[in-house]
Amino acid sequence: MVIEGVQPELDGGRFPVKRVVGERVVVEADVFADGHEAVAAELRFRTDDQAAWRDVRMALVENDRWRGAFPVSELGRYRYTLRAWVDPFGTWRRDLEKKAQAGQDVSVDLLLGEQMVGRTARSATPDDARELRDWVKRLQSRPGAVEAALDPGLLAVMDRYPDRRLSTTYDKQLLVVVDREKARFGTWYEMFPRSCSAELGRHGTFADAEERLKYVAGMDFDVIYLPPIHPIGHTHRKGKNNTPRPEPHDPGSPWAIGSEEGGHKAVHPQLGTVEDFESFVARAREHGMEVALDLAYQCSPDHPFVKEHPEWFRHRPDGTIQYAENPPKKYEDIYPLDFETETWPELWEELKSIVLFWIGHGVRIFRVDNPHTKPFRFWEWLIEAVKAEHPDVIFLAEAFTRPKVMYRLAKLGFTQSYTYFAWRTAKWELEQYFTELTKSGVAQFFRPNLWPNTPDILTEQLQTGGRPAFMQRLVLAATLGASYGIYGPAFELQESQPLEEGSEEYLDSEKYEIRDWELERPESLADFIGRVNRIRKENPALQSDRSLCFHRIDNDELIAYSKCTEDRANVVLTVVNLNPRLTQEGWLELDLDPLGVDPDQSFQVHDLLTEARHVWQGSRNFVRLDPSVFPAHVFRIRARVRTEHDFESFM
Amino acid sequence: MVIEGVQPELDGGRFPVKRVVGERVVVEADVFADGHEAVAAELRFRTDDQAAWRDVRMALVENDRWRGAFPVSELGRYRYTLRAWVDPFGTWRRDLEKKAQAGQDVSVDLLLGEQMVGRTARSATPDDARELRDWVKRLQSRPGAVEAALDPGLLAVMDRYPDRRLSTTYDKQLLVVVDREKARFGTWYEMFPRSCSAELGRHGTFADAEERLKYVAGMDFDVIYLPPIHPIGHTHRKGKNNTPRPEPHDPGSPWAIGSEEGGHKAVHPQLGTVEDFESFVARAREHGMEVALDLAYQCSPDHPFVKEHPEWFRHRPDGTIQYAENPPKKYEDIYPLDFETETWPELWEELKSIVLFWIGHGVRIFRVDNPHTKPFRFWEWLIEAVKAEHPDVIFLAEAFTRPKVMYRLAKLGFTQSYTYFAWRTAKWELEQYFTELTKSGVAQFFRPNLWPNTPDILTEQLQTGGRPAFMQRLVLAATLGASYGIYGPAFELQESQPLEEGSEEYLDSEKYEIRDWELERPESLADFIGRVNRIRKENPALQSDRSLCFHRIDNDELIAYSKCTEDRANVVLTVVNLNPRLTQEGWLELDLDPLGVDPDQSFQVHDLLTEARHVWQGSRNFVRLDPSVFPAHVFRIRARVRTEHDFESFM
Repeated sequence: MVIEGVQPELDGGRFPVKRVVGERVVVEADVFADGHEAVAAELRFRTDDQAAWRDVRMALVENDRWRGAFPVSELGRYRYTLRAWVDPFGTWRRDLEKKAQAGQDVSVDLLLGEQMVGRTARSATPDDARELRDWVKRLQSRPGAVEAALDPGLLAVMDRYPDRRLSTTYDKQLLVVVDREKARFGTWYEMFPRSCSAELGRHGTFADAEERLKYVAGMDFDVIYLPPIHPIGHTHRKGKNNTPRPEPHDPGSPWAIGSEEGGHKAVHPQLGTVEDFESFVARAREHGMEVALDLAYQCSPDHPFVKEHPEWFRHRPDGTIQYAENPPKKYEDIYPLDFETETWPELWEELKSIVLFWIGHGVRIFRVDNPHTKPFRFWEWLIEAVKAEHPDVIFLAEAFTRPKVMYRLAKLGFTQSYTYFAWRTAKWELEQYFTELTKSGVAQFFRPNLWPNTPDILTEQLQTGGRPAFMQRLVLAATLGASYGIYGPAFELQESQPLEEGSEEYLDSEKYEIRDWELERPESLADFIGRVNRIRKENPALQSDRSLCFHRIDNDELIAYSKCTEDRANVVLTVVNLNPRLTQEGWLELDLDPLGVDPDQSFQVHDLLTEARHVWQGSRNFVRLDPSVFPAHVFRIRARVRTEHDFESFM
Repeated sequence: MVIEGVQPELDGGRFPVKRVVGERVVVEADVFADGHEAVAAELRFRTDDQAAWRDVRMALVENDRWRGAFPVSELGRYRYTLRAWVDPFGTWRRDLEKKAQAGQDVSVDLLLGEQMVGRTARSATPDDARELRDWVKRLQSRPGAVEAALDPGLLAVMDRYPDRRLSTTYDKQLLVVVDREKARFGTWYEMFPRSCSAELGRHGTFADAEERLKYVAGMDFDVIYLPPIHPIGHTHRKGKNNTPRPEPHDPGSPWAIGSEEGGHKAVHPQLGTVEDFESFVARAREHGMEVALDLAYQCSPDHPFVKEHPEWFRHRPDGTIQYAENPPKKYEDIYPLDFETETWPELWEELKSIVLFWIGHGVRIFRVDNPHTKPFRFWEWLIEAVKAEHPDVIFLAEAFTRPKVMYRLAKLGFTQSYTYFAWRTAKWELEQYFTELTKSGVAQFFRPNLWPNTPDILTEQLQTGGRPAFMQRLVLAATLGASYGIYGPAFELQESQPLEEGSEEYLDSEKYEIRDWELERPESLADFIGRVNRIRKENPALQSDRSLCFHRIDNDELIAYSKCTEDRANVVLTVVNLNPRLTQEGWLELDLDPLGVDPDQSFQVHDLLTEARHVWQGSRNFVRLDPSVFPAHVFRIRARVRTEHDFESFM
């Protein structure tokens, strides 16, 4: 028996694929044997802590391709493998049928069948054995033997006793990591708590940040992500706009972690205490939000590690500690850790204890800063160790680096990953990139989290496209990605001034100073964002990326795509005008099958952004989008169905 | 270091890829490390009987993809793997250059470099050590140190001492089977020696077949393949046209092997003796042809095995031996061997000894009958065992079965394989099938051998299309496939009567009777076939399948494709009219790059079938093919080149 071409199988089984609780794992494989005998195959699965396999029969698709599926209902790790065998009874039955139809003498064949059924009876349960002995008698009777041989009742009993003596088990056990639903569907909001003060110029505290929660929850976000909350170093502290000479009151970058007041397990005193943080987490939960913490494994020169463990850093020939650099850029306020230092086991354990510390204080989501500059092996070890104890923990990789490195980090265990979405602006780029992310093997291990902006990324498009560009990018992120996030309030207030011409850094970046945001400004997109996020909540089609399907439209400035639930009960079609300045119109050529639409029936398109409803018919339909009004349609598709009483209605 | 996505790598290294002597193995892999350090990679290769690896540096292509290549010059098995390492000197040099360009202080960096070069000097050859110590001095001098650091001379010496202490070797050793050239390029002619008699009605002998060699060699074939030459059984012998009641003089099917006169190691007495066969092999060699024997592991009821080893066959409940069947078809003149019998090691050894016996009598090519009805494991064992002693042996698999089974047999060791070519007649089918065979991973292990007809296959197209269909299919086979063959003289004499409506069997098939072929009939295609085969011999582009490239042409009845040598010195463009009745014309849209043609220069197309020459320009060119004259163009492309003296000529 040959079992090959198993899908999913990541790098020969070296890495697990990813699912969330409640999903199914659909497995396909080429299964065949030499010769002409009939074959049977089954899928075997179990959780890591179960001893016994559960088995599901696979079915032939076509061309020796078999398919089966199993559900994953528990957090943690599952294993699966395949087993196949030649099926002598099935072969005998198939051949007998052909011979009987051709009117051939089958008496010797019937003898063979009697032997097979009799043998099976000897190892069957008493009830089945009795039934099988009856079948043996019927196989001996003339006439009537052929009818008995081909009776589905006999097949049903025989199928309970597959002859697996010569079965072949696939030589690998493949892995699935099962996460909670948030790993697939989440709506993130990043904010700096120090900018949450109600009084101009005062450093915000966790208590101030709690007051801000109602505002964020009002936009229907469900993850609130905070940049590092730890004490900030003094040495080589950066001033406003990343200048090397800070003013005395400049607060410094939160990523320059550690001072005399503590390191990664401490809270910056100006924000409050660990207890204040816990209160913030609890209040967020009341608002339906989880808190995500930043995990940035690097130190300011004032971090306690520098004194207590100088051996955890690299030293230069002149005796100084090597600061971070990406030549010719220098980051003298940051010392990278030396993950390959001689005492690395001690260092790694300390780094793990930081994650466990914050888990102990209510955190279950970590946004990991620059994981690609630390060893792959470290991440695999860390994530596996943490998730063995806490399978509900989510790690988001912030690795803006080469594609293969990003994919590797996802394979090594990161639950979600930042993407190149911010820089994919043309229709062909978006179609190509999201086809790769959702339709290739990448979808088995890489879960994209889409950000139109971050504190480090103010794209040229947002700098120049005005309010329509922000709306357009928000809709793209929120409907292309089941997980997406924005950095606010910069986003909803459409902050768009770069540090300088050609830079993607914000002018007066919150990374280096406290900002006083005027949340109530009338042009704020908060209401619009809230509307989009509620559409995401109410439409399960938008809560997964697997069904993404691009549709043709005869204008390169318009992009169209749909998502649907497996049963097609919820279908959303999005059309976005990618040009922030000019009205665009075009003819859609819809692929009706993924929309669940019958080509001969009209269907309703209900724009969830504007509440407008239209009745469309067939593939070709016209759209026109004025970016100064709404740069996008987010249509719920309602197929027309004929009811029992021949009364037409929309589902 | 990560090394992944290695190509070629067949099923995780389970199976070897295939090459012929003189070719190169181009290997690609994704190679990258965590962090920002420069990396280096090399390809390691050796033959199976060498202990030491030879190393070739790989080069970065793009996006972390690296490429290298090694030549295979010996028959047998090669191994290859990859090794990669971070390159501290390369990293240091790259970063120093950036820092120096930005005008930064690099004194500490120079200290680091001194240490690195000094360390390398201590493990270098005396000459290199002297040179490296000079470089250390130059790195200490001010000014001039930066120039020294970036000097390519220093890099050249340092590159001879890569720091491989932390190198990563790919965890698999991958295999290549290297065959002789005939495995890639061969022109086959199948004939029944018993039909070679000059006298009407007399059973032909090997001596008669020797006389026929000149005729076959005249068409420039280089492999002559004979159906089984062994004694033919009497029991249940088939008569003319496969009737169950033979006349006394019916010769029986050569595939019903074995009688009182011997089995697979004997020669049918009416053909002659083993010595006569050896003489035939020697004469064929004089004509530039090799003899391929049929290897059909099955027995007539009269085969000596049946008496001597009844345990090598399956027995039915009524005590009789199970004959071959494919319900409802019965082959009572043939007993299949039971490869899984309890004494299988003895049976397998005997079957191997048959191959070795004929190798001992000068045979190096075996056409294997129905390998898909015997165990996969048997073929892998047999072919590996035979090729370990005789790496020049070629096995052609005659497995007309499901695609995955055909591919599996090729992976298990068959040198070449029959294909679905005979039934691929429409342009889209031919393009799709030959793209799969030559452009996907399949090309690494599956070598197609194209047959427009066989004694079992007279396609509907040949039955109905007349002479143009035979010419068209011959050109397609001979130019799409570096290996192809015909069953003659049925092919060149355009034998086209089927046994019955809807059948692909020949009427009066040579499988069941002796045929008296009128070779000199004026309509014979022998001259045309000879012309095509000489074109194949003279144009190395046609001797390999890897370069196959389809070109667009705006008529679905016309197909166009090219092949070229790696250096583009020989380029052949074939255009075939697939309609055997009507003249077709159309505009070609040539892809000029694989033709080695400069878009701005005109080029000559020289029809090697008709000797007509035309000068073309650019991609769009017109063709018109009348099937009643010639249904194909086989153009040699001659790019116009400007010579030293500005004299234009065609290469």
